[in-house]
Amino acid sequence: MRTLQQSFAVQFSYGVYFTENLFSTGNTLLTEVLQQDKSTSRRKVFFVIDSGVAEAHPQLAQDIKSYAQGHEQVMKLLAEPMVITGGEEVKNDTELLYQLLEAINTNGICRHSYLIAIGGGAVLDMAGFAAAIAHRGIRHIRVPTTVLAQDDSAVGVKNSFNSFGKKNFLGTFAPPFAVINDSQFLLTLDDRDWRSGISEAIKVALIKDEVFYNEIKENAEKLVQRDMPAMQQLIHRCAEMHVQHIGGADPFETGSSRPLDFGHWAAHKLEQLTNYSLRHGEAVAIGIALDVLYSKLKGMLTAAECEDILGLLHKLGFALYVPELSGCDATTGKLAVIKGLTEFREHLGGQLTIMLLTRIGKGVEVHEMDEKLLEQAIDLLKHRFQPQTLHHV
Amino acid sequence: MRTLQQSFAVQFSYGVYFTENLFSTGNTLLTEVLQQDKSTSRRKVFFVIDSGVAEAHPQLAQDIKSYAQGHEQVMKLLAEPMVITGGEEVKNDTELLYQLLEAINTNGICRHSYLIAIGGGAVLDMAGFAAAIAHRGIRHIRVPTTVLAQDDSAVGVKNSFNSFGKKNFLGTFAPPFAVINDSQFLLTLDDRDWRSGISEAIKVALIKDEVFYNEIKENAEKLVQRDMPAMQQLIHRCAEMHVQHIGGADPFETGSSRPLDFGHWAAHKLEQLTNYSLRHGEAVAIGIALDVLYSKLKGMLTAAECEDILGLLHKLGFALYVPELSGCDATTGKLAVIKGLTEFREHLGGQLTIMLLTRIGKGVEVHEMDEKLLEQAIDLLKHRFQPQTLHHV
Repeated sequence: MRTLQQSFAVQFSYGVYFTENLFSTGNTLLTEVLQQDKSTSRRKVFFVIDSGVAEAHPQLAQDIKSYAQGHEQVMKLLAEPMVITGGEEVKNDTELLYQLLEAINTNGICRHSYLIAIGGGAVLDMAGFAAAIAHRGIRHIRVPTTVLAQDDSAVGVKNSFNSFGKKNFLGTFAPPFAVINDSQFLLTLDDRDWRSGISEAIKVALIKDEVFYNEIKENAEKLVQRDMPAMQQLIHRCAEMHVQHIGGADPFETGSSRPLDFGHWAAHKLEQLTNYSLRHGEAVAIGIALDVLYSKLKGMLTAAECEDILGLLHKLGFALYVPELSGCDATTGKLAVIKGLTEFREHLGGQLTIMLLTRIGKGVEVHEMDEKLLEQAIDLLKHRFQPQTLHHV
Repeated sequence: MRTLQQSFAVQFSYGVYFTENLFSTGNTLLTEVLQQDKSTSRRKVFFVIDSGVAEAHPQLAQDIKSYAQGHEQVMKLLAEPMVITGGEEVKNDTELLYQLLEAINTNGICRHSYLIAIGGGAVLDMAGFAAAIAHRGIRHIRVPTTVLAQDDSAVGVKNSFNSFGKKNFLGTFAPPFAVINDSQFLLTLDDRDWRSGISEAIKVALIKDEVFYNEIKENAEKLVQRDMPAMQQLIHRCAEMHVQHIGGADPFETGSSRPLDFGHWAAHKLEQLTNYSLRHGEAVAIGIALDVLYSKLKGMLTAAECEDILGLLHKLGFALYVPELSGCDATTGKLAVIKGLTEFREHLGGQLTIMLLTRIGKGVEVHEMDEKLLEQAIDLLKHRFQPQTLHHV
């Protein structure tokens, strides 16, 4: 009996928009985005808001309601916006995931309705996961509010949820309906959330674009001073490079490599080892510092370039050492962070593939890491960047 | 600041294979399928087996182990096969889903490893859902063992899990790595599982292919007598039509219609109303009978064709009436099954779109259903197919 061969392509497309004051009545961006669906009836819309954003913007829920009323021919709010606790912890909270799915069910949100999530990367990851698995996928619009979410995580095609103590153990590849970056949300970020997303821009510049790296370096002081145009420029270019990268190669990651994840094998593990007290971007800064030093020790990168990168990260205010970097695994006696290599490989599947640097703007993939050199690199970070203990005389 | 436009296509392809005795050492099909990944190292493989299959084939787990040993250059069993309770209940069991995800984690099953599920449609739906959300998707091979799974559900790109009392509320579109139909598994099916999948073949024939419908009619007696070549022919043609349909149109169902789901709006609801004591295929037979009668009452289908179809379903042994078809919703006082229309619309999103018949081999989509006519059709089914009560004189 002959074999049947199935073969088809699925086309995905979405816009990443930049705006200010998304919910002021005169701003028509959201209505234009919704109307891309060509529907002739009012769109059913349900909002999820990160609790951190709701606190910093107490009028937001009311603004959304007014906006929906002002554009009632286009959209219809299905219910009050649902406020969800922000931060990585939300991705461990099975009960909250269930509540969101229940709200999707109770409010009759169908595949042609919209779940619009406003918040940091963690809330967007979790809400995106709920949207992807309810009814096999409802339409999802992301409104990222942190630098990291605007320049990196929200721009891509992934969602996630943590399980079994592993970051992003669950998730799917599910392109959003649209991504809308509103720079007004950046104004109320605390310094950590303002800073931490810069590391993703440095990361992508280091492996792909020396010109962008130099631009970040030139703007470093402005970025520290919270200059908005400098930050907008960084976010736009970083988001653009992500969009190009994802669309150009292997969007659903069927291969073994993840070329954009420079510095990430250690970052993911450090987040877990610090019980997520490190922000993702903060952990990435340490991961970059580690792999940059390792690249130098391995003889791939010059000492001057290594120094330049560590200097930039330090100038931007990133802590480049945390005690968890030197902690040992109770069972193996080895550095606990090194287990991140195995977990990184296991998550992607296939052969271990780690991105390192040969020069600023040029990454290269390797398939093994020398543990002795890694220990050496960690020691160097410790001696240089360990916070000074104050001695009382 | 200018908008970024993301746009890419993802190519999916997989084979649907037909074989006998998949795990006899001389059968090289599975090793050939695995080697399509071009990997040079041994593939990590984990098996899930439907408890019903494990009982009917007590030597199966041992056969799998021997097979893996006999082909150890190609594959490596990560653990003992995991036996999972069969039947629709498995799709309501959150604890079991968690256990399967935990096994995926514990055994280090990565995106390049294989989860091979052997069983009926429900176990394949649930295992497929676990495979789709672990690590954002691990490779999944389906070995369907019932007629329904072999000719319909396992051939497609969907997986699912029930939630909030709704069938398939959770799930994703995730094409399998391969589908392998082994006709030996059909030998041990009880009569219900042998019969119930035939309704999906009748369904697809009714809306698309009169020749196939007549072929089923000619073979009806053989099918009742459990003639294997007749069943293999039915399964192959039905699977072929599914593969063509899915690949040809809207595989991830972004539109509002689901043209293959003739008779399914009532079927899904009846499954739930009977607490899944009806098999999916049995419910589909009733759903077909209902929509065929409705099509006749609506003046779309001739009485002769309606009679022909009801006669075929009856001859094959399908019960075409269950009391739940006439049960009323306590709140609304209306027929409970009619709520299936709303739920069907909500699951797909957008406008209500129901497939009806204009003649055998030709379906047509409508966007409203007349409740009075539906009640009439249900009454007709009741008076004709209600099992006779025995009166003791």
